[in-house]
Amino acid sequence: MRLEGKPVADKIIKEVKASISLLIEHNIKSPCLAVIQVGNDPRSSVYVKNKEKEAKKAGIISETIKIDEKISKEDLIKQIQSLNESDKYAGILIQLPLPQHLKESEIIEHLSPIKDVDGIHPDNLGKLMRGTPYLTPCTPTGVIEILKYYKIEISGKKCLIIGRSNIVGKPLVFQLLQENATVTIAHSKTQSIEDEVKKADILFVAIGQARFVRGSWVKDGSTVIDVGINSLTREDWEKKGFPITDSIEADFKKKGYAIVGDTYFEELEDKVSAITPVPGGVGLLTVAVLMNNTLKAYIRQKNLENHLSEWKNL
Amino acid sequence: MRLEGKPVADKIIKEVKASISLLIEHNIKSPCLAVIQVGNDPRSSVYVKNKEKEAKKAGIISETIKIDEKISKEDLIKQIQSLNESDKYAGILIQLPLPQHLKESEIIEHLSPIKDVDGIHPDNLGKLMRGTPYLTPCTPTGVIEILKYYKIEISGKKCLIIGRSNIVGKPLVFQLLQENATVTIAHSKTQSIEDEVKKADILFVAIGQARFVRGSWVKDGSTVIDVGINSLTREDWEKKGFPITDSIEADFKKKGYAIVGDTYFEELEDKVSAITPVPGGVGLLTVAVLMNNTLKAYIRQKNLENHLSEWKNL
Repeated sequence: MRLEGKPVADKIIKEVKASISLLIEHNIKSPCLAVIQVGNDPRSSVYVKNKEKEAKKAGIISETIKIDEKISKEDLIKQIQSLNESDKYAGILIQLPLPQHLKESEIIEHLSPIKDVDGIHPDNLGKLMRGTPYLTPCTPTGVIEILKYYKIEISGKKCLIIGRSNIVGKPLVFQLLQENATVTIAHSKTQSIEDEVKKADILFVAIGQARFVRGSWVKDGSTVIDVGINSLTREDWEKKGFPITDSIEADFKKKGYAIVGDTYFEELEDKVSAITPVPGGVGLLTVAVLMNNTLKAYIRQKNLENHLSEWKNL
Repeated sequence: MRLEGKPVADKIIKEVKASISLLIEHNIKSPCLAVIQVGNDPRSSVYVKNKEKEAKKAGIISETIKIDEKISKEDLIKQIQSLNESDKYAGILIQLPLPQHLKESEIIEHLSPIKDVDGIHPDNLGKLMRGTPYLTPCTPTGVIEILKYYKIEISGKKCLIIGRSNIVGKPLVFQLLQENATVTIAHSKTQSIEDEVKKADILFVAIGQARFVRGSWVKDGSTVIDVGINSLTREDWEKKGFPITDSIEADFKKKGYAIVGDTYFEELEDKVSAITPVPGGVGLLTVAVLMNNTLKAYIRQKNLENHLSEWKNL
């Protein structure tokens, strides 16, 4: 089975929109999301545009704040603090990566945890870790949403995460633990990664290496969640010896690149019981969860929890 | 090999004391640790006394603040806030468990993260998780100290943690990940725990069940870190069918109970290459790391990092 991301993302966006419609019916304004983009990285611009588009679908007001890439650390922190204090913004997202002279971990600490809709402030990571989550990182939360939507049992399962990034692999450990999985986290220093993969009931791959996991590695009937989004030019593609299908050819002609995941989808699809495609899988969830987090932050800030559930039950 | 905790704890305390002596030589006062004890739980009283004793050894001033067990949440928070603000205290520790009417996770959030010498505030957990640790939880930090002291290689090893508590199992995931281990975390919902144990190069057990892990489970030549501290009365002991040796008999006579770990030490000792005894292993490290954390917090609060390393090099 292909675990398509679209119906899951659509469901989340629809629910966010329904809640916001209820707020508006009760004369409460839509939440507003501030997206800070430092510099003009073209890939970041694509992501930021995409966030604006999805916000619109969900009924969230989004405001992109473009900042010169030469901004000093101190000035950026001042900007963040003024957004923290402004009643206008329910959520603040800092589009990553930041220019080299700005240390991400330092900058993120200055976000107000209650507005940190990306769920990456240490306070939010710590709350997730100890089992009292508030705003959780978007991509791993999307992964859990996919598993739940398709009713894939997590409790008691052997889960293997490959990749230990702060925004995917590490938080996912606790989101799976929360669901009572036995969780292993592997990475570039892991010995005999293939043996680990062979034993996993559910495999999560988030390392950013095109088609890293081969079909022969996985356990028959397992579930595979491919979190990788690698864009390859025709030259990269040919260097890796990947076959060029008609749709890949069309991508090269249209966009100059093609997107591929961290697993060799064509080799895995017939062996596993379920797998997320790339594109069209986890990637679609990240922004949907961001919108849900923005609503959640807003509801919390305005103390609307009880009102909203009351209105929903009317 | 028995991984005795004493030389490791002694080394840490000695280093803390040496640093504090340097501070005093330069007319800087000793750091002060506030230990908050709510109620009169006799076990907590033992722990608190032990902390006072070790603080003295390390040259740290400790102050135990006894609070009536009926204190309201609001009043306790006020007390904590006044300690946060007082320049007198470098570190604040809330002795757990708290009385039932006080929710630990809520109370802990009111500690100032820079004085949280137990390393359990969400902000400190989150910093540990993302690989920028500041104050880290005492027991798992002690575990890492033991492995390093005895030069047990962690990088690339298959580590299995049994137990997912917020103060041991969960933080240990990241402390081992930081050392490049492949880490699995298992718990009561894990299927076939014995198979997991059999594959582990280094096994960490922190579930609070007397002699849970049997000798037949472990891999030959592996390393075992037993974090359990279970006190059993003679009646408990007999019910479990554990043999009563002379030293256990002596404990029953002297104290009314005997301490035993989460592994069956006698069965494991000849199979594994190294194991921590209980008592006398990890338990001794917890308080030593607490003293080190108190010094660390003080140095950070007073901006003494550079001075101290300069004085050390004189």
